[in-house]
Amino acid sequence: MMKTTALAAALAAVALATPVAAQMDVEDQIETRQSAYQFAAWNMGKIKAQAIDGSVAYDQQQIQAAANAIAAVANSGMSTLYSRDSANDRADNTRLKPNFFEEPMKVQEVAVNFVREANKLQEVAATGDKAAVAQQFAKVGESCKACHDNFRAD
Amino acid sequence: MMKTTALAAALAAVALATPVAAQMDVEDQIETRQSAYQFAAWNMGKIKAQAIDGSVAYDQQQIQAAANAIAAVANSGMSTLYSRDSANDRADNTRLKPNFFEEPMKVQEVAVNFVREANKLQEVAATGDKAAVAQQFAKVGESCKACHDNFRAD
Repeated sequence: MMKTTALAAALAAVALATPVAAQMDVEDQIETRQSAYQFAAWNMGKIKAQAIDGSVAYDQQQIQAAANAIAAVANSGMSTLYSRDSANDRADNTRLKPNFFEEPMKVQEVAVNFVREANKLQEVAATGDKAAVAQQFAKVGESCKACHDNFRAD
Repeated sequence: MMKTTALAAALAAVALATPVAAQMDVEDQIETRQSAYQFAAWNMGKIKAQAIDGSVAYDQQQIQAAANAIAAVANSGMSTLYSRDSANDRADNTRLKPNFFEEPMKVQEVAVNFVREANKLQEVAATGDKAAVAQQFAKVGESCKACHDNFRAD
């Protein structure tokens, strides 16, 4: 997993340094990235309900599937869905702040953290250790929040 | 993988036979399922570009990540996002036809096919065999189309 994370970091850095997905227009980028995060959030919600709140019975297979889904989003090359014109000073229907494109090292840090913590959640979920899942779920949540706090408008 | 598929089939059947996600309202169900399919479609598009059209260079890591993403959607328990009130005779912003709830065996068939073909694509993607990926990509596409043809309004 460390190797995957390092590679993801390298890819994220490359994606940020090169022209982004020329064939995808800004609206598609916004809609696609929102879809990916919504899919991840739905799966975060399932883990929260089962491993934190206890409002739904813990189901090992569902927890693993949810963790796989979150990791799949984290590793899907989300950085290709961000172009300068897709920030909220130039585009509608997005809360992405323009400083996203002025702080590439910070972006890389939050992106790499998300990938690392999501990959770790996937590993932990496979063990069936509910307490460990709850703990790692919180780490993933923090990595989501770090991006929101830095780059998402209220 | 056969075991996973059989289990998915069983879960799909159970989900169809029981009251669906009481805590999620119809609009959330619609938006969440559309997000999941859009995330899957984005990843299908990457495989198409790299393994079929050749418009983007074949990248083994990206192909695997895309296949993981599609399988994650297929295995995420999508059936919990369908309630009777979420069809297009009762809800807005959806093309889901009401016959979805009148043909549970057909629904189960298309759902199980999607899971099976997506899981197989994930396996094939890991081998790095581009021709096999292209072939299995087509199978997944057929499984998507089977649901659209049966249950999605034009």
